[in-house]
Amino acid sequence: MSVFEHRSYDDHQRVAFCQDKKTGLKAIIAIHNTNLGNALGGCRMFPYASGEAALDDVLRLSRGMTYKSAAANLPLGGGKSVILGDPRQHKTEDLLRAMGRFIDSFNGDYVAAEDSGINESDMRIMALETSHVAGFSSLQGDRGDPSPATAYGVFVGLQLAVQQRFKTSDLKGVRVAIQGVGNVGYRLAEMLHQAGAQLWVSDVFAANAQRAEKELSARVVDPSDIFTQDVDVIAPCALGATIDDTVLNLLRAQVIAGSANNQLAYDDLGAALCARGILYAPDYVINAGGIIDVYYQRQGLPYAKAHKHITQCITDTLKEVFQRSAATGEPTNLIADQVARNRFDPQSSAMGCVA
Amino acid sequence: MSVFEHRSYDDHQRVAFCQDKKTGLKAIIAIHNTNLGNALGGCRMFPYASGEAALDDVLRLSRGMTYKSAAANLPLGGGKSVILGDPRQHKTEDLLRAMGRFIDSFNGDYVAAEDSGINESDMRIMALETSHVAGFSSLQGDRGDPSPATAYGVFVGLQLAVQQRFKTSDLKGVRVAIQGVGNVGYRLAEMLHQAGAQLWVSDVFAANAQRAEKELSARVVDPSDIFTQDVDVIAPCALGATIDDTVLNLLRAQVIAGSANNQLAYDDLGAALCARGILYAPDYVINAGGIIDVYYQRQGLPYAKAHKHITQCITDTLKEVFQRSAATGEPTNLIADQVARNRFDPQSSAMGCVA
Repeated sequence: MSVFEHRSYDDHQRVAFCQDKKTGLKAIIAIHNTNLGNALGGCRMFPYASGEAALDDVLRLSRGMTYKSAAANLPLGGGKSVILGDPRQHKTEDLLRAMGRFIDSFNGDYVAAEDSGINESDMRIMALETSHVAGFSSLQGDRGDPSPATAYGVFVGLQLAVQQRFKTSDLKGVRVAIQGVGNVGYRLAEMLHQAGAQLWVSDVFAANAQRAEKELSARVVDPSDIFTQDVDVIAPCALGATIDDTVLNLLRAQVIAGSANNQLAYDDLGAALCARGILYAPDYVINAGGIIDVYYQRQGLPYAKAHKHITQCITDTLKEVFQRSAATGEPTNLIADQVARNRFDPQSSAMGCVA
Repeated sequence: MSVFEHRSYDDHQRVAFCQDKKTGLKAIIAIHNTNLGNALGGCRMFPYASGEAALDDVLRLSRGMTYKSAAANLPLGGGKSVILGDPRQHKTEDLLRAMGRFIDSFNGDYVAAEDSGINESDMRIMALETSHVAGFSSLQGDRGDPSPATAYGVFVGLQLAVQQRFKTSDLKGVRVAIQGVGNVGYRLAEMLHQAGAQLWVSDVFAANAQRAEKELSARVVDPSDIFTQDVDVIAPCALGATIDDTVLNLLRAQVIAGSANNQLAYDDLGAALCARGILYAPDYVINAGGIIDVYYQRQGLPYAKAHKHITQCITDTLKEVFQRSAATGEPTNLIADQVARNRFDPQSSAMGCVA
């Protein structure tokens, strides 16, 4: 089987494999679609079990970036890159520079941002070889880490989902269970706390959860119990695919709104949530704050402009998704796909070819 | 399975998949190795049964180009590209221009030349989008079609093989069966005829064989019988992998020397030929005349210089292969691989890591 036949291949425009024996670099860059602009997406380093696992990841993630940027009304395409290896063992300056050259060979069609396993200082090293890296503070005035912007966007989306379900925009007393209070999850927790919400939190790193308990009066629960709490809202802010059949049957919340990518284990869960009256705020619609911020940083524009775009765009797109879902009975995740595809590929949308 | 795990993946430095929905282009470019220079290799268009078949082809062919250019002492790496599609049905100017852009995205790391399914006028169209195409006549003074140079190199190699086996450099009366008298095979037949050899020819296109019969006094035989003729030399000048177990047991010739790529169905046949006393002139060593000519064309140098390089290099490399094979008893195809690898990757050769 080649890339063209891969189950996660969705007419990706470019998929390139690179090996550099001198530095040990093994990497894949996937550009899903550039109809709206050059492809911007994270560069991830992970000890994949196989090249196949890495390929599947980069194909799915790059496709997701196309939808996310389109939903965020950004003039950007979708791309992603993965480095095969353990960031704690195999990351060297030479390897990162080789990755920089691989990124550079795309002449800007792909622009890399940091992602799991790759931090700001890694991006700086890559930047010695290419100007097509984004999202870290530099002499050009980038603000760096886009996590606060992501958290803010999720907050906006969560609030709108609460309003849609409970007919109130006041978060006071609303019970929210947050899975994962790391970079993004913790900032979301702070905003929710400030707005008067009650918090339940879990984290595989106990210290993160304890900090939320101490500073935000959150109740700490075991990671395996976070989805069964008697709360109003579930906010998945950790790994993807945490909403599966098992969790579906245990959920007591009426809203799902979080920052994790690919929250649903598979697409059809959207319909199952819908049938159970649980309102799902599609992940890539509300976690687009980071990419919006990175885009504005690349343009040399102040955060205030990014903030305005995040507020307006997430509100507008999510409202459109909720309204169309309410009108048609179709699940929100599929409506979001239609809305996004209609922006980056209106022709195929018109033919009914939705994701 | 990703590219990294593919059976034909041999530490290729770059493998890129491209799809352009507007033009219907589906293509793969593989760069095997650039230790000696930028990768030069043909661009082929073929109605592959699957993307997998195309991937296997481009991986094997690009690897072969590294060995061929190294054996030819050229400062070139090995690459190849394939377009998935039927050249008679799917070839359009837009598609070829999209392929030109795909080639151009490698910034010269890969330079394309014509190959099966892609002719000179196709190359001219690609050249509207990229300067990284070679081997067609143009205003820059390229001579175009490198087939005559390929045929000349094979003639040099065949003659040397005859000398090695029969202790005479005189081809007068030497009986040669040529499989395929198309572009290259026919020119080889002409040179052999002029040198006094007796010819047996076959071709799937009857007109080609008939022309050789009329003009070169060749005996025409059925394509299925060409390898069983009572001759001194077999010259495979058609498809690859025609020497297999069945043919091995029917061969009456003592020399194999032709222009086809990948003549042996699998590597171990080299040892079987060796054991039967059949001298095999490794395909990529003696069919390198074309790539040598293209290289000299790219440098703007006259054919006389390419001709000299072809004569000297094929003679020297083939002599080295024959001598080492005679001294060690190892088959010529594996010796050739060692010689080539020692040129493009001396370090791994030193570690005994041969192809």
